[in-house]
Amino acid sequence: MERIDVALIGAGRMGQVHGGNAAAQPGMRLKYVVDPRADVAAERAAQWGAQPATLEQALADPAVGGVLVCSSTDQHLAHALAAVRAGKAVFCEKPIDLDLGKVRAAQPEFAGARFVLGFNRRFDPHFRALKARVDAGDIGRLESLQLVNHDPAAPPPGFIPTSGGLFKDFTIHDLDLARWLLGEEPCEVFAMASCLVDPEIGRLGDVDTARTVLKTPGGRLCVISNTRRSGYGYDQRIEAFGSAGMACAGNVHGDTTLALTGHGIAGAPIRPDFQTRYRDAYRAQLDHFADVLHGRAAPAVGYADGVAALVLAEACQQSVRSGAPVHL
Amino acid sequence: MERIDVALIGAGRMGQVHGGNAAAQPGMRLKYVVDPRADVAAERAAQWGAQPATLEQALADPAVGGVLVCSSTDQHLAHALAAVRAGKAVFCEKPIDLDLGKVRAAQPEFAGARFVLGFNRRFDPHFRALKARVDAGDIGRLESLQLVNHDPAAPPPGFIPTSGGLFKDFTIHDLDLARWLLGEEPCEVFAMASCLVDPEIGRLGDVDTARTVLKTPGGRLCVISNTRRSGYGYDQRIEAFGSAGMACAGNVHGDTTLALTGHGIAGAPIRPDFQTRYRDAYRAQLDHFADVLHGRAAPAVGYADGVAALVLAEACQQSVRSGAPVHL
Amino acid sequence: MERIDVALIGAGRMGQVHGGNAAAQPGMRLKYVVDPRADVAAERAAQWGAQPATLEQALADPAVGGVLVCSSTDQHLAHALAAVRAGKAVFCEKPIDLDLGKVRAAQPEFAGARFVLGFNRRFDPHFRALKARVDAGDIGRLESLQLVNHDPAAPPPGFIPTSGGLFKDFTIHDLDLARWLLGEEPCEVFAMASCLVDPEIGRLGDVDTARTVLKTPGGRLCVISNTRRSGYGYDQRIEAFGSAGMACAGNVHGDTTLALTGHGIAGAPIRPDFQTRYRDAYRAQLDHFADVLHGRAAPAVGYADGVAALVLAEACQQSVRSGAPVHL
Amino acid sequence: MERIDVALIGAGRMGQVHGGNAAAQPGMRLKYVVDPRADVAAERAAQWGAQPATLEQALADPAVGGVLVCSSTDQHLAHALAAVRAGKAVFCEKPIDLDLGKVRAAQPEFAGARFVLGFNRRFDPHFRALKARVDAGDIGRLESLQLVNHDPAAPPPGFIPTSGGLFKDFTIHDLDLARWLLGEEPCEVFAMASCLVDPEIGRLGDVDTARTVLKTPGGRLCVISNTRRSGYGYDQRIEAFGSAGMACAGNVHGDTTLALTGHGIAGAPIRPDFQTRYRDAYRAQLDHFADVLHGRAAPAVGYADGVAALVLAEACQQSVRSGAPVHL
Repeated sequence: MERIDVALIGAGRMGQVHGGNAAAQPGMRLKYVVDPRADVAAERAAQWGAQPATLEQALADPAVGGVLVCSSTDQHLAHALAAVRAGKAVFCEKPIDLDLGKVRAAQPEFAGARFVLGFNRRFDPHFRALKARVDAGDIGRLESLQLVNHDPAAPPPGFIPTSGGLFKDFTIHDLDLARWLLGEEPCEVFAMASCLVDPEIGRLGDVDTARTVLKTPGGRLCVISNTRRSGYGYDQRIEAFGSAGMACAGNVHGDTTLALTGHGIAGAPIRPDFQTRYRDAYRAQLDHFADVLHGRAAPAVGYADGVAALVLAEACQQSVRSGAPVHL
Repeated sequence: MERIDVALIGAGRMGQVHGGNAAAQPGMRLKYVVDPRADVAAERAAQWGAQPATLEQALADPAVGGVLVCSSTDQHLAHALAAVRAGKAVFCEKPIDLDLGKVRAAQPEFAGARFVLGFNRRFDPHFRALKARVDAGDIGRLESLQLVNHDPAAPPPGFIPTSGGLFKDFTIHDLDLARWLLGEEPCEVFAMASCLVDPEIGRLGDVDTARTVLKTPGGRLCVISNTRRSGYGYDQRIEAFGSAGMACAGNVHGDTTLALTGHGIAGAPIRPDFQTRYRDAYRAQLDHFADVLHGRAAPAVGYADGVAALVLAEACQQSVRSGAPVHL
Repeated sequence: MERIDVALIGAGRMGQVHGGNAAAQPGMRLKYVVDPRADVAAERAAQWGAQPATLEQALADPAVGGVLVCSSTDQHLAHALAAVRAGKAVFCEKPIDLDLGKVRAAQPEFAGARFVLGFNRRFDPHFRALKARVDAGDIGRLESLQLVNHDPAAPPPGFIPTSGGLFKDFTIHDLDLARWLLGEEPCEVFAMASCLVDPEIGRLGDVDTARTVLKTPGGRLCVISNTRRSGYGYDQRIEAFGSAGMACAGNVHGDTTLALTGHGIAGAPIRPDFQTRYRDAYRAQLDHFADVLHGRAAPAVGYADGVAALVLAEACQQSVRSGAPVHL
Repeated sequence: MERIDVALIGAGRMGQVHGGNAAAQPGMRLKYVVDPRADVAAERAAQWGAQPATLEQALADPAVGGVLVCSSTDQHLAHALAAVRAGKAVFCEKPIDLDLGKVRAAQPEFAGARFVLGFNRRFDPHFRALKARVDAGDIGRLESLQLVNHDPAAPPPGFIPTSGGLFKDFTIHDLDLARWLLGEEPCEVFAMASCLVDPEIGRLGDVDTARTVLKTPGGRLCVISNTRRSGYGYDQRIEAFGSAGMACAGNVHGDTTLALTGHGIAGAPIRPDFQTRYRDAYRAQLDHFADVLHGRAAPAVGYADGVAALVLAEACQQSVRSGAPVHL
């Protein structure tokens, strides 16, 4: 298979995940690493057999077919726009931006663009297998959903002010999963939230524990369970209830060993963080971007999905502020 | 151990469960079976080595120390009152009554009475083991709960009008479990509900699928998941999330066998109904009543618990009607 | 259903299990308790609403239809013979006797007798469900078996000399299960054994840890894993491998709770002993005897099964002694 | 990290596994691909960024530090010897050779060589976690082992004559695992075997279903369960029993989804073949070889392990032939 050149914009935490996968993806060649920190760009580029470059250099190279936008959240939109204007296919980390107004304003420019948004959980093999069961009718007609998304440990308080808050930063993954699985757009949102993990998060105006209920026009119900700190690993589960049964996707454990003693049964912890839990999902996501890059697939999750999830996240925030459900 | 005589009031579905257990309980002797259907009373009495009687006869017998009220819901309160006035210890099936006003009006008469309310799930060994884990601090400080209570199949529509509706008839078990586990009284209730199982239930003004969110003054959150028809058995689960981990109590399967073939793994269904799922809980509940009867224990779940659960069930109903959370 | 009177011979450990079940079995009435210790007989009889009696009294009562032989092993055969000669249906704890010669010599007297041998595991709901899967063809043609039978803790050394040794006392259950499941009589037996649990057991000429391999004329293979002390409960499992898959019956845990923390997953111990693990099996076994008593069923496991299992147990012993396989 | 050049000898089924891993291993550079089929060598070399070469060319290149011997079994020893004589570190697929005499004769030449034998299961994360539990004393003193190694489907009969037979080709993995885990060399071997899967295998003088029992001088017992065709995937499990409990490593399922319906619970099949089941093990094994190559580690599994496993495999064969246990 021919390889198409791609550029990585941003070599931070997510940039490392996607850069490493891009370097190993058989359909793309990681040519440029762009990062404002010249030493970081140089080091990563060397690691992956790429070269450091400026954004302008990377976008000006006609051999570059695709761009991976992994910069800081407040730059996602500007970098994605620049890449789209340069005619590149774009993979963009979520969220597009925290400001729904800006996201909507830019939406027309993305019409027709090859733009893949980084809602990685749609590519998780366990969640895909769950969706396949639902789509195959294994549980009859889907009626309700239970999504569990519990982070292992709270972020440092310094992260909170620029994070967008629990709903835009974290719940947004579940809102996208809900849309993907429900097959209908939610029309009612109610969220109840607390600050139980770290009082500093509360002082910064955010919450760290929440339950969100969604309803669709067809009466389907969805509950999202979130916490910033589980204490036991990265709890990532889905339960789907239908007219003829239920299907669930469970946690992935570190290994399959069990020990039985007089104290009971003991097993390995669940995967501790997103890097280990979603390793296969990140690879599959980039494989999908390679397919888009090669013209073999249309984007499975695009700009409009980012807008829709953001609308729901804002509704969650509004529900918590007002103490009332929000109708969409 | 000496046996104390008891009378069973009502030999219907629940009366059969409790009558059979009473007949086998080593601390009580089932002396009378009271039922308006004389043939039913006679047949059950013969089965259990008891004698049929009228309510008056049973209450007038000074040897009778306790009464099991298993009559129809609209008679629970009157029968319980009569028994309490006669100085008997009372085990009463839930709910006390569907009318909160009547329940509250009668409450003073139950002050000091030996009255055990039939919230059987508090006696389930799995749920008790879960509470023991929480109480032992295995998961740190309790922060949130997820209760799943899915009936296997919808009741006949004819049951709906006198049932009190989903929340007073069914969710009330979960509301009691929530109070028992949370260790705080909920102060906010929001319920979202649909009619997805049987349109006839909707035409009768009830719902069959609901998600209820509770909040306590300490910020603890609790979600209750209910449906009248699971399609896969009697789904009864609890998940408790704390500051240092989570604990859960899962479903009980019919047997432990598994078959592995090229199609995957296949196991036995979960317990299909309340009789099989809560068999041990019903026995343990009656053991507890025997302890109360013998003066060895104070009632673990009493009249005030019935009132409190009913208050929450009414709040659920009001939330669904108003579309807004209810503050208590 | 009419009740038929039965007598219990022996009110020791197994007598208590069967006596309690007989007292609650709706098709039988426990009329007599026979035990050489008069106070024990009187106490148990009072507990179960029966009366103490001598063996002669019990057998002379024409109302007595059945006898439960739960005396010490060295008396099983004499008591069973006396009951059969008195025309009673007999339930007899295993083994019939430790001396194969005596067992064979008495066999003609049991021809035509209603005699149920207490191989309780055949009545375990989990093992029955496994057999049902195998019989239904879920795994194709059965090819091999793995039986795990690990006692929780070694018996006191004083038990060893009269026990018959590991194979006749303990493995005999598995030898019967193997015959039941394989559908063919084993024709070759090889056993390898050690004394790892308690050196005193070795000094007494017995072993406490063994692996036994059986082969049938059709080439089916069966491994039996035994130890006198597991350290983690009463490990009772079966795996059946066939041409199209495998089926297994697992351990039963004390409850369904799990706790997840940073250390991993923790669950309840497996059932600790035969009384809790096989409670349902003992009930079902006595239900079967009730069916035999009422003429509704032929014995599912009889005298010839006891002989066959004993033959295999002796082959195991001989294999350990000779260090070579034994051909039957 | 500096990369050290390596050459791959043999680009067949195992060569593809190891070649792909070598190409991605950060401590080595796959420089040469050697295969008698020139087109295969060229194609694989192109795929991995290497160049096709003859064995002589590869061994003559002083930059080549290591050689991966993945040729056909009958050439393993010659290729490994040539590489060792050329001073290269050697990774060699198992078995060294099927002829124990030849293997022993060559052993002196491997004294001091950096030689890693491809017993991949020692590198499986699940089995390593099991060994860690055993080594940590979680189950007390190890007393017995149960190893399950069931191939998904029988090989084509044409494979049998050059395979070395079930024990040398397949069981040898378990014999190595047993040695690794038992911590003592087995001193007694008994194997019972059948031909149940494919009569053609029997006509060729081999067996396809076997149970092997090992004993160590300390009395530890180990059972190995093998079949050439499971019908349900690649069944790979270990159970270790100790004085204080048991530890087990289970199968890995394709995904974590379950579906519950009225028919019961249904889950994904276990991993279907060695490529998917041991993917991580093969990577970890090559990481270990990289450590050996860089002088950071001594070989964890070497020539002597290959000899010892072969001795046991021959004892299994002899036991089946003679029908008696073999003492070593």
